[in-house]
Order: sequence, then structure tokens, then C-alpha cells
Amino acid sequence: MKQARLFTPGPTAVPAEVLESQSRPLIHHRTDTFKEAFAEVTAGLKTIMKTENPVVVVAASGSGAMEAAVVNITAPGEKVIVTELGKFSERWRDIASAYGVETVSVEAEWGAPVTPDAVERAFAEHPDASALLTTHSETSTATLQDVEAFARIAHDNDALIAVDGITSIGCHDVRTDEWGLDALVGGSQKGVMIPPGLGYIALSERAVKKMEAGRQPSFYFDMVRALKSAAKNDTPFTPAISLVFAMQAALRMMLEEGIDTIIERHKSNATAVRAAVNAMGLELLAKTSPSNATTAVMAEDFATDITKKMEHEHSVKIAGGQGKLSGRIVRLGHIGHYYPQDMRTMMHAFEQVCGDLGLVATTGPGVTALERSYAGGD
Amino acid sequence: MKQARLFTPGPTAVPAEVLESQSRPLIHHRTDTFKEAFAEVTAGLKTIMKTENPVVVVAASGSGAMEAAVVNITAPGEKVIVTELGKFSERWRDIASAYGVETVSVEAEWGAPVTPDAVERAFAEHPDASALLTTHSETSTATLQDVEAFARIAHDNDALIAVDGITSIGCHDVRTDEWGLDALVGGSQKGVMIPPGLGYIALSERAVKKMEAGRQPSFYFDMVRALKSAAKNDTPFTPAISLVFAMQAALRMMLEEGIDTIIERHKSNATAVRAAVNAMGLELLAKTSPSNATTAVMAEDFATDITKKMEHEHSVKIAGGQGKLSGRIVRLGHIGHYYPQDMRTMMHAFEQVCGDLGLVATTGPGVTALERSYAGGD
Repeated sequence: MKQARLFTPGPTAVPAEVLESQSRPLIHHRTDTFKEAFAEVTAGLKTIMKTENPVVVVAASGSGAMEAAVVNITAPGEKVIVTELGKFSERWRDIASAYGVETVSVEAEWGAPVTPDAVERAFAEHPDASALLTTHSETSTATLQDVEAFARIAHDNDALIAVDGITSIGCHDVRTDEWGLDALVGGSQKGVMIPPGLGYIALSERAVKKMEAGRQPSFYFDMVRALKSAAKNDTPFTPAISLVFAMQAALRMMLEEGIDTIIERHKSNATAVRAAVNAMGLELLAKTSPSNATTAVMAEDFATDITKKMEHEHSVKIAGGQGKLSGRIVRLGHIGHYYPQDMRTMMHAFEQVCGDLGLVATTGPGVTALERSYAGGD
Repeated sequence: MKQARLFTPGPTAVPAEVLESQSRPLIHHRTDTFKEAFAEVTAGLKTIMKTENPVVVVAASGSGAMEAAVVNITAPGEKVIVTELGKFSERWRDIASAYGVETVSVEAEWGAPVTPDAVERAFAEHPDASALLTTHSETSTATLQDVEAFARIAHDNDALIAVDGITSIGCHDVRTDEWGLDALVGGSQKGVMIPPGLGYIALSERAVKKMEAGRQPSFYFDMVRALKSAAKNDTPFTPAISLVFAMQAALRMMLEEGIDTIIERHKSNATAVRAAVNAMGLELLAKTSPSNATTAVMAEDFATDITKKMEHEHSVKIAGGQGKLSGRIVRLGHIGHYYPQDMRTMMHAFEQVCGDLGLVATTGPGVTALERSYAGGD
């Protein structure tokens, strides 16, 4: 069987240019060549995050980078507010709890974002909260949150804001500096299109001041130490060298395309996919504020069969649901290196499989709506 | 200039078979293919560590895996004994201190191992110590320690033993189960011959009991959670997929060669290199208990020029000193995918450069001694 192509919301398909970079002989990290690559990677990450803040790259998954945010911007005994709208936003609470931080959860129905009003009320009830831990694009429900408004509220309440940008960076417009995001966390296997294993984090001046004043116990994720190394294009521990070169290759492609063009491409793909799903008569999970990273479709009892048939009969690997949405939704991924022809491949397979399984009565309206959307139609 | 080949004690040269595995399209980690690879990797790591203990693979550098050992086998308020004989063994103390653990250091002159007697005395003075954090092969000084004896002493004192095996696994005979090592930590860019970015840790039943009873705050390095996932060939967070496939390729090569043959090959290479250095009239840093991972040579004022000339004129990348040995020694690496022909390349370059710089009067005795050693001579 042909190896299925990834249409999952991470890991995403890795471009051939990036794969090629991984087959070159390894070079040592204490060399000018590596330091130049590391500097280029850091600068590229700043560009796609629209920030002048220092950026730290860690050899860890995105969850490790989230922990780096928590242990550095909170101190023992503090209280934080967490928005909860899906599996990954719940992780903020789990990490903070692991360090004995008191957490106040502001919840939304899965598929909806937490409203700025709800965050405002939480701060009114808990004026002693020192930080808001929140999520830009919640991957498990394909939902986007208004972190710009959240940042304003957090700062009005003298609190810091940490944002999980793992599936928004390189996909949505993330204006780190303009919005004042204090800790913005990213992962490598998403918009940056490389294999998993690298996390990165942009830290504001406020965040740096806070961590220098006192933070949670930590060594590997000590950002005070990491920032000192980063200022010299270095890392405190052996970096994941091959993945750094992968990121160099990927960021070169991204900067050549331009971050705003990339954001528009994701918007165009996501809009077309949502139009196709609607035209098929299926229901979107995220109706009011969908993310452009992935599209979650209500599929109830059909979900597992859809993902299996798409993989085995069409070599198209999509994702199912997570947590309480497991077996109830499918997620059609479009974060990363995806163009209209890829969306055609994915939506053709999806519509055929939905037809085969009897979830839709006729096939055709989906791909027709996809094309109409790309052509600028309604 | 030709890209210099790595003869550093990590990262080490990555075999072509492993590099090739990195250029294949990425597959998703929630698939049977990945789980099979992950199971194969875990089994392979157990073979080279000679253990039946469960093994956890983390997306992090070796230092991250060391932190995983500390946070899981120590609890807040405890006291540990640390052997200090170089830069990496000091890291145990730094990590434990970051978590508020009281540390008792047993020091050795850099270039010498800590003796079992000294460890025995430390436990006699500190019978309340709950763990010994120690190092099998100290990379910064090329020194091997008797962790078998250390384990006996720790257990006699009802303490656990955590061992940094980062440059001993896949190089020296590491008998995890026979010696009773409770937490054995490894890294990917050493004996396992792949790029950096994966750490791994084997945990004894004693260690598991201890961590279940109470441990330091941690989330990403929570081994209780990781072991539950590992039992299902899964990971709690997105694994570094491409590096796992690299490890699969590397471990296949290693198991084909056989771990005991690999250990003998490292011994043979290290013995030959030390004979060559002695024949050149140069001084070894580690005289009494040298590691077979790397050979540290006293080079005083010549150290920096030697490493530079070897790289630029011979495309052979060796390492200098670290910490207080910076600029005073060179380290000739032979951990990993190295055979007699590679040692010839390295020692020829080293001897020529030492001759050019006037550190040795004549060239020839080094490579002659190398050959004599391989031929079974004295």
C-alpha cells in the first residue's frame, strides 16, 4: 500500500526540501556553521511570530515548551486563570497543577471559544491571579480564541498571558508584540512543517522580569539560563541539531513565501474545506470561531470508519477526535505545506468515503463547493 | 572545504543508513507502524543496557533525561550524594539543587574516578541520603567509574542509584540488572549513533516504587505517566518521530553487530589510541581508569591550535576541554560508529598536527603504536 500522506493537524506533511536536509552528515553544534543556522532559525521564528522578543528553542515537544512557560512565569503559591475548551487547553491546567499552582478554569463547550467577557469575569472574581494560560487555536476542537482581547484583559489585571500558539503560528496571524503576548509557545510539527521534537517560546520583557524575580523549580526548562545562551546563538544543553537544520530549511521556504501570504493560504484552504463540508450537509464542530489549522466535522458513529477508509483506500491520513470527542468527529488537517491541489485530494477522498459509508446520499457537492470557494464564489 | 567528519565524544558521526532513514516521508505517531518501531526501539535499548526494566524514551537531550531521573527518584526535602569528577557529573548536583534537594558532593581530581571507599564514607557520614547520583563515563575527563561497586554501596545504605550512562551505553559493558542500577540515563547522539534530541531512561522496580510514593513537581518528565504510556508502546506527548526511526535504524545495526562485539570494538579502538598517545610521549588525562568513549590528552597551550588545525587541514573534528579543562586538553572521540580505519584517519591527523605545532619532535611513533596495538602487540 502507498504510504498515506499526512492531513493531520500535526504532525503535518514534511516538504521534500526539509526531508533532504535530514539526510546530510551531522555537524557539531559548537561550530560557526551551527551557530549561524541557529541564529537564522531564531530570526525566522521571530518573523513568523511577529515579535522582537527573544526566542528560545528547546529540544522537547510542544508540551515541554508549555511547561517551560508555566515554570518560568509562575512562582510557587500563585494562582492562574486557564481557559478550557478542549484537550490541549486542559493541559495548561494539568501542568500548573503539577507545580502546585492554584488554577481557576473558565470553560467553554467543546467547539466554542471562551469569550473575553468570561475571562474578564474570572479576573474580577480572582484579582490575585498572576497569569492567564490560554490557547490561540485549540487543536482538538478546531477552535480559535481571541487572544488579543485576552491579553488586554490580563494586562489590565496586572497579570501575564501565556499563549499556546502550537497550531496557530505559521497558520493564523499571530501578532505577538502588537498584542503583548508574554509567553508564546510553538511546536515544530505544525505550521513550521518539520518533524516533532523542537519546541520554541517567545518571552516578553515582562515575562523575563517575572522569571528573574522567582519561579518554579526547573533545570532543563530554566529560561533564564536558556536566554543567556540564546543571546550568543547557543543552547545550554546539546540542541537537536538535525531538527534545527530542518527548521532552517522550512523557515527559508516560509520566508520566501512570506508569512502574510502563508496566513492567506491557510485561510483560503480552510474556507474552502468548510464550504465543502457545509455543502455535503455535514455539521462543523466549531461553528462560531473556527481555526484555520484544521476542520472538525461531526461524524458520530462514522468517525472511526471514515479515518480508516480514507487511509487504507485513499492513502489520506486524517485525524479522529480526542478526549470526549474520540470516535465522534473527524479532523481534516490543513496546517502546513498544503495547497489547493492537496485540499482536492483530501476532500475528494473524504466525500467518496462519506458516500460509501452512507453518511451522505450523493457525492459531488463537496468538491464542487471547494472549487467554487477557491474561484472566489460564496 | 570538505565537511569535517566528527570524532567528538557526542554528537558522533551518524551512519549513512541512519541518515537515509531521516529522508523518508514522516508518518503519524498514532499508527501501528510507529508503535511497532517504538516497541522495537525500546526492546533494542533494553538489549544494549542489559536490562529487563521498563525503558522510557523522551524527546529531550541527555540532560533532560537526567532531570527525569532526579525529579522521579527524589522527593522534596531529601538529601542525595553526588560524585563529582568533571563537568557532566556536576550537572547531577545542579539539577538536584534546582529542586531544593540537599546535595553532598564526593569529589575526585578531574581525570580520576571517585573511589568506592569515598562513596562508602559519604554514606557513613550521611546515612539519611536517599540516593546516589553518579556517572559511569565522565565525558569531560574521559574517566570511567566503578558504578557496580557504587550500586552495592547505595543499596547497602537503602539508597537508590541513578547513573549517567550517556557515554557508556553502547560503548562499555553496562549491566543494568546485574548491578542493580535504579535509573540509568542515556542520550541519542553517543553510542546509539543518531542525532541529538532523544533521551532514554531505564527504571528499576525500586525506582518505580519510589516515584509512585512521591516525587518532585514535574509534568513533561513525569515518569509514572510515561511508564503507563510506554507499556502500550505509546508516549504521553508527541514523540520525536523522525529520531525514533533513526534509532530504529541504528539499533538494527547495533544488534546485528552484537552488543558485546561493539563493546570489544570500543575497547580495541580506545586501547590503540591510548597506546598511540603514549608512544607520542604525550600525557593522558585519565591515567588510572580511562573511558573507552574518548581519550583526553594533555595539550596545554597547544589544545586550541590542535583542534583547529585538525578540522581545517585534515577535516577531522575533535573536541577540546570543558569547564576548567577548557584550552588545556583535547579529546579524541571513539564512541559510536568507528573502526580501525577511522582511528587511523584520526591519529594520523593528530600526529601530523602535533608535529607541525612542535608538540612532538617526530611523527610516526603514534600511528606505529596504533597499528601494533591492533595487531595484538603491547
